[in-house]
Amino acid sequence: MIRVGVVGAGYWGPNLIRNFISCPATELLAVCDLDAERLRKVTSPYPAVQTYGALEEMLQRPDLDAVAIATPAGTHGRLGLAALRAGKHVLMEKPLAASSREAQELVQEAQRRGLVLMTDHTFLFSPAVQRMKALIDSGDLGDLYFIDSVRINLGLFHEDVNVVWDLAPHDLSIAQLLLPRPPLSLSAFGASHAPAASEQEDLAHLSLDYGDGLLATFHLSWLSPVKIRQFIVGGSRKSIVYNDLEPAEKLKIYDRGIVIHNEDQRYRAQISYRLGDVWSPHLEQVEPLQTLVQHFARCIEKGDRPLSDGLFGWRIVCLLEAAQASIKQAGARLVVQRPAEESLPRLAA
Amino acid sequence: MIRVGVVGAGYWGPNLIRNFISCPATELLAVCDLDAERLRKVTSPYPAVQTYGALEEMLQRPDLDAVAIATPAGTHGRLGLAALRAGKHVLMEKPLAASSREAQELVQEAQRRGLVLMTDHTFLFSPAVQRMKALIDSGDLGDLYFIDSVRINLGLFHEDVNVVWDLAPHDLSIAQLLLPRPPLSLSAFGASHAPAASEQEDLAHLSLDYGDGLLATFHLSWLSPVKIRQFIVGGSRKSIVYNDLEPAEKLKIYDRGIVIHNEDQRYRAQISYRLGDVWSPHLEQVEPLQTLVQHFARCIEKGDRPLSDGLFGWRIVCLLEAAQASIKQAGARLVVQRPAEESLPRLAA
Amino acid sequence: MIRVGVVGAGYWGPNLIRNFISCPATELLAVCDLDAERLRKVTSPYPAVQTYGALEEMLQRPDLDAVAIATPAGTHGRLGLAALRAGKHVLMEKPLAASSREAQELVQEAQRRGLVLMTDHTFLFSPAVQRMKALIDSGDLGDLYFIDSVRINLGLFHEDVNVVWDLAPHDLSIAQLLLPRPPLSLSAFGASHAPAASEQEDLAHLSLDYGDGLLATFHLSWLSPVKIRQFIVGGSRKSIVYNDLEPAEKLKIYDRGIVIHNEDQRYRAQISYRLGDVWSPHLEQVEPLQTLVQHFARCIEKGDRPLSDGLFGWRIVCLLEAAQASIKQAGARLVVQRPAEESLPRLAA
Amino acid sequence: MIRVGVVGAGYWGPNLIRNFISCPATELLAVCDLDAERLRKVTSPYPAVQTYGALEEMLQRPDLDAVAIATPAGTHGRLGLAALRAGKHVLMEKPLAASSREAQELVQEAQRRGLVLMTDHTFLFSPAVQRMKALIDSGDLGDLYFIDSVRINLGLFHEDVNVVWDLAPHDLSIAQLLLPRPPLSLSAFGASHAPAASEQEDLAHLSLDYGDGLLATFHLSWLSPVKIRQFIVGGSRKSIVYNDLEPAEKLKIYDRGIVIHNEDQRYRAQISYRLGDVWSPHLEQVEPLQTLVQHFARCIEKGDRPLSDGLFGWRIVCLLEAAQASIKQAGARLVVQRPAEESLPRLAA
Repeated sequence: MIRVGVVGAGYWGPNLIRNFISCPATELLAVCDLDAERLRKVTSPYPAVQTYGALEEMLQRPDLDAVAIATPAGTHGRLGLAALRAGKHVLMEKPLAASSREAQELVQEAQRRGLVLMTDHTFLFSPAVQRMKALIDSGDLGDLYFIDSVRINLGLFHEDVNVVWDLAPHDLSIAQLLLPRPPLSLSAFGASHAPAASEQEDLAHLSLDYGDGLLATFHLSWLSPVKIRQFIVGGSRKSIVYNDLEPAEKLKIYDRGIVIHNEDQRYRAQISYRLGDVWSPHLEQVEPLQTLVQHFARCIEKGDRPLSDGLFGWRIVCLLEAAQASIKQAGARLVVQRPAEESLPRLAA
Repeated sequence: MIRVGVVGAGYWGPNLIRNFISCPATELLAVCDLDAERLRKVTSPYPAVQTYGALEEMLQRPDLDAVAIATPAGTHGRLGLAALRAGKHVLMEKPLAASSREAQELVQEAQRRGLVLMTDHTFLFSPAVQRMKALIDSGDLGDLYFIDSVRINLGLFHEDVNVVWDLAPHDLSIAQLLLPRPPLSLSAFGASHAPAASEQEDLAHLSLDYGDGLLATFHLSWLSPVKIRQFIVGGSRKSIVYNDLEPAEKLKIYDRGIVIHNEDQRYRAQISYRLGDVWSPHLEQVEPLQTLVQHFARCIEKGDRPLSDGLFGWRIVCLLEAAQASIKQAGARLVVQRPAEESLPRLAA
Repeated sequence: MIRVGVVGAGYWGPNLIRNFISCPATELLAVCDLDAERLRKVTSPYPAVQTYGALEEMLQRPDLDAVAIATPAGTHGRLGLAALRAGKHVLMEKPLAASSREAQELVQEAQRRGLVLMTDHTFLFSPAVQRMKALIDSGDLGDLYFIDSVRINLGLFHEDVNVVWDLAPHDLSIAQLLLPRPPLSLSAFGASHAPAASEQEDLAHLSLDYGDGLLATFHLSWLSPVKIRQFIVGGSRKSIVYNDLEPAEKLKIYDRGIVIHNEDQRYRAQISYRLGDVWSPHLEQVEPLQTLVQHFARCIEKGDRPLSDGLFGWRIVCLLEAAQASIKQAGARLVVQRPAEESLPRLAA
Repeated sequence: MIRVGVVGAGYWGPNLIRNFISCPATELLAVCDLDAERLRKVTSPYPAVQTYGALEEMLQRPDLDAVAIATPAGTHGRLGLAALRAGKHVLMEKPLAASSREAQELVQEAQRRGLVLMTDHTFLFSPAVQRMKALIDSGDLGDLYFIDSVRINLGLFHEDVNVVWDLAPHDLSIAQLLLPRPPLSLSAFGASHAPAASEQEDLAHLSLDYGDGLLATFHLSWLSPVKIRQFIVGGSRKSIVYNDLEPAEKLKIYDRGIVIHNEDQRYRAQISYRLGDVWSPHLEQVEPLQTLVQHFARCIEKGDRPLSDGLFGWRIVCLLEAAQASIKQAGARLVVQRPAEESLPRLAA
């Protein structure tokens, strides 16, 4: 049984609290938030859970194995380091940190101390994404041609982050899980429509080039009158359309694609297309965050590496930073810096 | 009554033939095509229409007022010039020409001779686009924030053009009609998945920056497993979603948007969003090409300038060329060259 | 402040509990259920709420003003009478009772004692149904022609009720609210596909004739592979389509209908149709049960008659009984017995 | 090569003409219509086709093998008999006749003369219906539970027929093809909203009982603000949803249904439901009428019995008549009279 404390009782914290409560492998001991009223409210159904106004105090509890942090991104670096230094395993809300430097510090600190550091990229644990991963790994799609991701809505504006930092971690983490190789370069552009004081982009387009014709594009917006959450993976033999708003048939596999005829063609290939069946696999109705929380507990127990470990989250932060930089340079295409396994400190063993 | 000849009996030619036949202001005299069998087939229902294997011959008919050209883009420059030099008004299938140089020649030749040169951007004459134009011109949308256009499908590959030259003329012409100002810069990237001999891009993304936060993006693909034809115009007060695949409610106007509160805010604006009704205006069921053909006839009769005149089509060709150039430079952002009214030769009057 | 006790902590009870807790006009004092474990579970977040295993005990509390009953329909008569006889106002889950005789007893008991008896037809309090009511009352739809209601799904089978008693109360109550006159006759048929021991129909069709060409049909099923919740009200001038599964545009008003031309026609009218705009009004995002609970409290405070009072619920039970009888008689059309105001006992005043 | 004449150049005639022209097994010799202008118009593309103002004249042509009749239903009996008596095979637009007596006469006349009589139930030849037939015949659906058919629209009112005779032949013929046994009884009700002089129902509901819990319901309307064409076949193991308006995925097979657990249950079965994959088979894009026309020609050549022969069409007319009678009797359930094979006259052989 992993004993857990949650930091931050705002938007995401209550979901963590509820899932740690219902997870058979975890026990929720404590919740920490600066806002006493909010703290009281979210913990009132759980009289056994102790509340803290200061993280330092909570971290002093020796019976606490792990800490889940759901505070604004700007605080992730500081709070995460504090928790790791207190010897606690850490589950960090996405994005892992507000900068790649902070992400690196977190990853290296966890590595040095032999602690589990996991990024809460919840979508990775959804049945739909897990099934996409299995389909792609099976090779059924043939050569991968493109990812086309759209996540747009009339959304809440955030004061502290732009639309890229808010929404892109979802789709970039899905792409990072699914694709067999890292992106080579990235380009992004966006626009802000709020008055000058606020410079946060409210719509943005990212394009990542993975080489050999594999492109991934991400359209993110807080300004769209219609809500779309669609993620297409196009392959030479089959393609997947993942529509997260569809209640019953989230995933459709299209057995269709282009066919290249070039046997007896001297000058150029002839291309036609092939239409086949469409198939929508039944997906279990499980809450992804529950699967994630169980995975976190098991990784701590077994000493396993989480699917979305610190390095995974760090790489996403690098992409976010690159997107930000490209937007500021009017869409300049930037080579993607990607932390390698070797960037982790060697462990004593 | 304008007497017309059609050049090219392939994919689009029969549509022109049918519409000139049914238009009360035009009379179809002749059709020209190199392929005698195809020519016989498309004209068999109309015994009064004369057929020609060579354009030169057809152009010698003094009773012919105008010529509609529906041949591959690579021939537009040559055939259009021949028709204009023979003193015929010209309706040219989109794109106006395969290069901006050819487009310029066509426009200047028509101008010098006082002939009507119209580009067949059919979508401009659809009830949905006409209604969008009226809505935007009325100011109801408030400040324009973005255009988000998606035209993707598992589509026919063309040997002679890539997906940009094939599909983008539709959406770029709609944007050019709707937006009150020209784009400042353009960036595009794409990919080709056919074997090396064919270098035609089969998917592409274009982004045009109109300044002051107004961005237009165009997603074009022959590779998508699902067919989408969606064109969103986002404004500060209202937004329009134009779904061309919707049989009954092609246009929806969303009375929703963001609200910026900054009266007493010292440092940054606070932004919320506002949700209102959705309204789908009834649109007449008319064939856009019939409206276009009547417009062409009326412009010839009255000496008016067509909505999509040569200059309009030339500007589209400049955008296509810039997109092509940007793709070849890995998405470099290019300043858009835009032919001005002044580039037209002064008429003797 | 109305002090309330909830009876039944099964499927619907927790929703009542949550809404009485959050309603500013009510205070939840007690919850009663035979199942001690279930009782403990649903009340654990609310330590101030007292729990009871026997209704009699709970009813003895003099500080309790009202009771909300969410137990199986077969117990409504007995439990409702007990509560009324103890002097408590009653909110009864739909259907009001398992038979019209029991419903009558409840209504008359409440009337005699001057207590509020309200049926929990939650849908009546949804923004969509309220808006439909306003539209119909305004006369905008013209003459009413039909109601076409479909509520089908792969649904949970109930042991104690068939699909009519389970699902039809929703749609019959909406129709009863919306339509200006009562149905004259009713016909129903259905089928059961479970083995002989269980004789509950799992699909059924009801048709109600309101005279003057106004028909209402209700399609109910636990067997449909697809989920549909659609309710159409057709009028001579406009029609409403209410799609309860639509997240954003639940209500659409179609400005279209048939036009009857018969000025100079000697023998028969000529009929054509008219197409106009479609309009989807923005609806507030409120929980209907919260509105209902506030309405219940206000009716008790002011002595008002609830929108869905006992008589309203009794009439629905009469329709359910008639449907049941018609099904057993292979769809025989039955005249609808409808309790009138006069069936209520005269109050002493 | 079967030489054919078409009677009636109104709504459906031109489709027959076009398909007989393009069918390699047929040659169109003649078209007959009372309206000379209409006749001229539809035959102008085909100068080789001879036109007739009177059927008698056309039937005298000895080189004519067969006649396709696409005139109002009220004339089917008289014109069909004339054609058969002239020794011509007959393809009759649905419904076969305006009464079962006339249908019987047609069937018996064709039988006596050894001529092919086929009813033009076009939907039977659509890839979607053919695929449904194959799926049902394979037994994959398990026990059949229900058919739920909806064909509603804001439709053209007909002067000579009501909505049942206009629309129900489509769905009744599909059901007759798919289901393994005939209906036992039928009930129908409808309403008319035109002024008194016109008594044609504009909306109607039919329910057919096939025994053993298998019900089929048909909802038909000219009054619906929305267009729906949905046909569900529910089985114990799988179900099919056929949405004819869906451009790409007309057919979906749902691997879901109810599961009956009754091993150790003494009193009643327990029922749960099972959710599985959804599968949409790719369907060929062929015009059903072309398949039908080829089938008609082959039946004549080989002496085969058409899928929708006269007896098939007669049975549909019996259902339409019964529906009409039930509507006039306020929905009375009527036993279905069904002509048997034995009602056909014995052939001399």
